[in-house]
Amino acid sequence: MDKEKPESRIPSAEDEKDFSEEKDDIQSSAADPALSGFRQDIDSIDAQIVSLLAERQHVVGHVAALKKTHNLQVYHPAREEDLISRRRQQAKETGLNPDFIEEIYRTIIRRSRVAQTGSMALKSVRSDGVVLLVGGKGGMGRYFQECFRRAGYQVRILDKENWPEADRLCDGIDLAMVGVPIDVSCEVIRNIGPFMPAKAVLCDITSIKEQPLEEMLKAHAGPVIGLHPLFGPTTSSLDKQIIVATPGRDDGACQWILDQFATWGAVVVRSDAREHDDIMGIVQALRHFATFAFGQFLKRRRISLSRTLEFSSPIYRLELGMVGRLFAQDSSLYSEIIFASEQRRDLLKDYINSLHENLEMLENGNKCLFQMEFQKIAEWFGPFGEQAMRESSFLIDKLIERF
Amino acid sequence: MDKEKPESRIPSAEDEKDFSEEKDDIQSSAADPALSGFRQDIDSIDAQIVSLLAERQHVVGHVAALKKTHNLQVYHPAREEDLISRRRQQAKETGLNPDFIEEIYRTIIRRSRVAQTGSMALKSVRSDGVVLLVGGKGGMGRYFQECFRRAGYQVRILDKENWPEADRLCDGIDLAMVGVPIDVSCEVIRNIGPFMPAKAVLCDITSIKEQPLEEMLKAHAGPVIGLHPLFGPTTSSLDKQIIVATPGRDDGACQWILDQFATWGAVVVRSDAREHDDIMGIVQALRHFATFAFGQFLKRRRISLSRTLEFSSPIYRLELGMVGRLFAQDSSLYSEIIFASEQRRDLLKDYINSLHENLEMLENGNKCLFQMEFQKIAEWFGPFGEQAMRESSFLIDKLIERF
Repeated sequence: MDKEKPESRIPSAEDEKDFSEEKDDIQSSAADPALSGFRQDIDSIDAQIVSLLAERQHVVGHVAALKKTHNLQVYHPAREEDLISRRRQQAKETGLNPDFIEEIYRTIIRRSRVAQTGSMALKSVRSDGVVLLVGGKGGMGRYFQECFRRAGYQVRILDKENWPEADRLCDGIDLAMVGVPIDVSCEVIRNIGPFMPAKAVLCDITSIKEQPLEEMLKAHAGPVIGLHPLFGPTTSSLDKQIIVATPGRDDGACQWILDQFATWGAVVVRSDAREHDDIMGIVQALRHFATFAFGQFLKRRRISLSRTLEFSSPIYRLELGMVGRLFAQDSSLYSEIIFASEQRRDLLKDYINSLHENLEMLENGNKCLFQMEFQKIAEWFGPFGEQAMRESSFLIDKLIERF
Repeated sequence: MDKEKPESRIPSAEDEKDFSEEKDDIQSSAADPALSGFRQDIDSIDAQIVSLLAERQHVVGHVAALKKTHNLQVYHPAREEDLISRRRQQAKETGLNPDFIEEIYRTIIRRSRVAQTGSMALKSVRSDGVVLLVGGKGGMGRYFQECFRRAGYQVRILDKENWPEADRLCDGIDLAMVGVPIDVSCEVIRNIGPFMPAKAVLCDITSIKEQPLEEMLKAHAGPVIGLHPLFGPTTSSLDKQIIVATPGRDDGACQWILDQFATWGAVVVRSDAREHDDIMGIVQALRHFATFAFGQFLKRRRISLSRTLEFSSPIYRLELGMVGRLFAQDSSLYSEIIFASEQRRDLLKDYINSLHENLEMLENGNKCLFQMEFQKIAEWFGPFGEQAMRESSFLIDKLIERF
């Protein structure tokens, strides 16, 4: 078999430098004129596609303007699904993979929706509204300040140094939104209470809801609602972002605030404060703590991140990315989430203990026990496992495509 | 302000049922004729775009055929980047967001590359090669059987029951590839050794490399190479998938196998066996174990996964998806990875102990300690944090788009 010289080879360590040149030689082979003709064809098709996308954007601009004038909502799921099934059908008829076309169209549609939502950002559901942001100089405070200002609201800021003017700042407001760190949230709510006009809405955006909501109901006799935006101040569009709303008092009088978020593209999920806090213990505190501990261990062992990445499947890259992402953010944000309540700290201690119970299994190399435990958990996860598999496979493809 | 009735409202719990009808009424408003005209324009543009994509696929088919005939490689990074920068340029000139166009084109290009790689799957670098798969009935065995068969190799299978025929099966082979569970890998290598033709390559695809490689060098005097494919048997395309190669003996004689994987689109990363095993302890064992323990705790606390998902930011959905994904797979695969060596079990015990050291901090509600620790880890992560932030933000956008 030695007679056959491999025609295409990957480089071994020694000839890495020659590799690109060799390949270039091959590329400019006998196939060159034909290849270059096909590439010109592809370039010309691509130029037409991009022109059509530009034309499409232009028409979408007209639709957005029309929707704005007539107060129609941007997100129209039925129309989107209809559009996608037509294109899937056309794909089948022309020998294209329908999933591929759907993928392309999900990207196009989202872009179009975000553009329309962007124009809706200028839209106010309460055009003469006055909004007071308490703690307006924090990340989320600045974020909402921008949202409300762009939508034409009159926005006032009450930060630490402005308490002497609280009386004047609260005069005539329609909404006071408290966005301060968790540990001072209840205190700030107590302080703002006496200045609230009777009909104005008091709301907070703390990431726990039970205590702040209780304090708001005590501090203000008028409309009260708790909010928890599940996104950070770096979110570029509110499109499909989730806000949890925990109603306090006089739902009807609070409705315009939820309408405003919906107009900006967000999705409002209702819950009671207790349930919210239980779920967030898992969704935020436990998850962030587990991620923190993973990063802590990587540092302790002085693992070479860059070398592990060279050896990594896309899914590891993604998981390590989640860890890196945490540590690129603000430590005080995470300490507030993790140490928010005793109940939460108990949850985390329970997690550590649960993990600790695996020590013996590792010590004894008890594979059987591991497999039995694994099976039980797999059964408990049920069909979610399959769904997770599908969704994460989709993302892994995206990751391969991009990086 | 009560005079103003909000024009667009999101539903409160009571009127959820009316919502869709109400919206339909609004959609068929005065804006209707104009809106429907614009929608027809959009549909017509979309039909043209999909036609062009079909045409593009047709031309790409010609390119693939040409590349196959002339043995040119599919993946041509310079051409891809050039194509993308032209479309970005056109996007800028026509008022489109260049990132949007790049995103669309990454999807198109990858689809085209996978299609071409699919046609390359039929391409053999050693057209009369004979491959013996030892343990060919496992998941990866069947996967590689399919790859080699489609590429025109003569493939033989040696599974548990075929040992009496080993002599005949090994006669005239060019490659024996051992793909059996970790715990029997070394034994199987010892058994196959005596049957190996002198010039045939012996390789394994075990997910640890140090011991199997040592055993292979002892069992066979000819060419030896260790391989670790970093993907599972459900991978639809080898495009950009990673295979770690740990050279054993006579690199030159093993090269054609790496060439074959490269032809199929995979990326070969070279390493020595020791380094491979150290890194995989982190990339596979630790990560899988941490994920396992997280799922274990969710079950222990009987958390409602579906309710947490309703409340979740896309990143939690993604992280929970990673956990669900693990439990949708084979428990024995993970037990083999986790219990592969004593060194690995020590690593995991160290991880549990590292986590356990945080108990006191939680007990005392010591936020300061947490923040100091967080800062130190963040510094250690260095610029990787920023990069992770960018990459994961991109994926979060994809997730919002899709689900």
